[in-house]
Amino acid sequence: MSTLYEHGTLAALMTGSMAGTITVADLLKHGNNGIGTFDGLNGEVIILDGEVYQAVSDGHVNHVTTRDAKMPFASVHFPDHPTPVQLDKVAFDLLNGQFVKDHQLANVFAFLKLQGHFEKVHTRIAPKQEPPYPSLLQVAQGQPEFQRENIDGTILGYYAPDVFGSITAAGWHLHFISDDRQFAGHLLGFSADHLAGDLQVFDTLEQHLPIEDQAFRQGRVDLKSLRAGIAASEGSK
Amino acid sequence: MSTLYEHGTLAALMTGSMAGTITVADLLKHGNNGIGTFDGLNGEVIILDGEVYQAVSDGHVNHVTTRDAKMPFASVHFPDHPTPVQLDKVAFDLLNGQFVKDHQLANVFAFLKLQGHFEKVHTRIAPKQEPPYPSLLQVAQGQPEFQRENIDGTILGYYAPDVFGSITAAGWHLHFISDDRQFAGHLLGFSADHLAGDLQVFDTLEQHLPIEDQAFRQGRVDLKSLRAGIAASEGSK
Repeated sequence: MSTLYEHGTLAALMTGSMAGTITVADLLKHGNNGIGTFDGLNGEVIILDGEVYQAVSDGHVNHVTTRDAKMPFASVHFPDHPTPVQLDKVAFDLLNGQFVKDHQLANVFAFLKLQGHFEKVHTRIAPKQEPPYPSLLQVAQGQPEFQRENIDGTILGYYAPDVFGSITAAGWHLHFISDDRQFAGHLLGFSADHLAGDLQVFDTLEQHLPIEDQAFRQGRVDLKSLRAGIAASEGSK
Repeated sequence: MSTLYEHGTLAALMTGSMAGTITVADLLKHGNNGIGTFDGLNGEVIILDGEVYQAVSDGHVNHVTTRDAKMPFASVHFPDHPTPVQLDKVAFDLLNGQFVKDHQLANVFAFLKLQGHFEKVHTRIAPKQEPPYPSLLQVAQGQPEFQRENIDGTILGYYAPDVFGSITAAGWHLHFISDDRQFAGHLLGFSADHLAGDLQVFDTLEQHLPIEDQAFRQGRVDLKSLRAGIAASEGSK
């Protein structure tokens, strides 16, 4: 059995439940690799081999060593017999198309980590919000974007089936971090000649909800606009 | 921490993945109360204090003692500090309206069990299907319905938030079983003067997927028709 642990939902973020509801310490009990964001949607988080990095919206990357910071939304797992993968001429087109077909990912949750030299990387970083929180869609309309060429680094994140697309990002949700840990963010686009890494398919999603949080309990989701909003805020292109 | 365990998804059933993918033995490791269906959508299952009952489409109820029968879709949990509830003049209107508000259920998963004397109970029972399996929507259009008046029994099942409505039934998904274990099914309607029981709110959904099952891996879900199909096949009225 292989489990992906998710705290919070994108749907709740969409309604403005952006206050942190799980500590880094508690999150790391459920995995040492993953992605997420901090209290107030403060940046893009990359968790790699138990180390926590936060890209903030001025473009800097913090190595987070405190364990009492809180997160409203995060996904983590422990590596367990991943499948090695080698890919040439890689971009989102390949990941979204042939790669999903080759590995039959359409209906499952999976983790992908790819390392190597990137010709281009295009990222964005969510800026910290203050209460009363806006909707994720409003935030998405004003997020700084960054580009780098010829940079060594790692992309990592998760694939989720379409039917889970109102609680998490459907398809790939990937973050990037450079080998020198100076550049990171939510991945919007990339190209690379050759990347190597591994893939892990999960048989279980452990979806944890912050049921003690009143903003979460009282949040009202408009399903009609939810998918459009998530596509606008979490899209990879 | 309180966990609801779900094996399979309604979305997969909708695409015709109706073959059993978890044994009763394995399911009962994750809970001793719950609901579900058997291989080929064969009937409505009620799991009560570790005993497994199956209402089949001719109206009979089997007490299932074999533990190697397989199920494509089921939800179970272990009772853990439930909240006692007492309700007067109970019907779906109350459960869907004031009860959800009073207990702030809109964004959480919860289990409800209510026992007592029912003036009316209206159920339906899914008939067993053979491969190649039709869609759940097709099955829903030909399901036998049953009515009883003045019957003692138990309703039990789960509440799921709207945003999880493509993987499970949004709102209440309840089954009924009579005290004499001779009448049971998926609950379409009921009325009762007074019912007593308990409510348990979960902070975790443990969603298990049959990733080794090729029909599941290859199933293709049409999101546009999914919610309409689930509403037609799992509706409570």
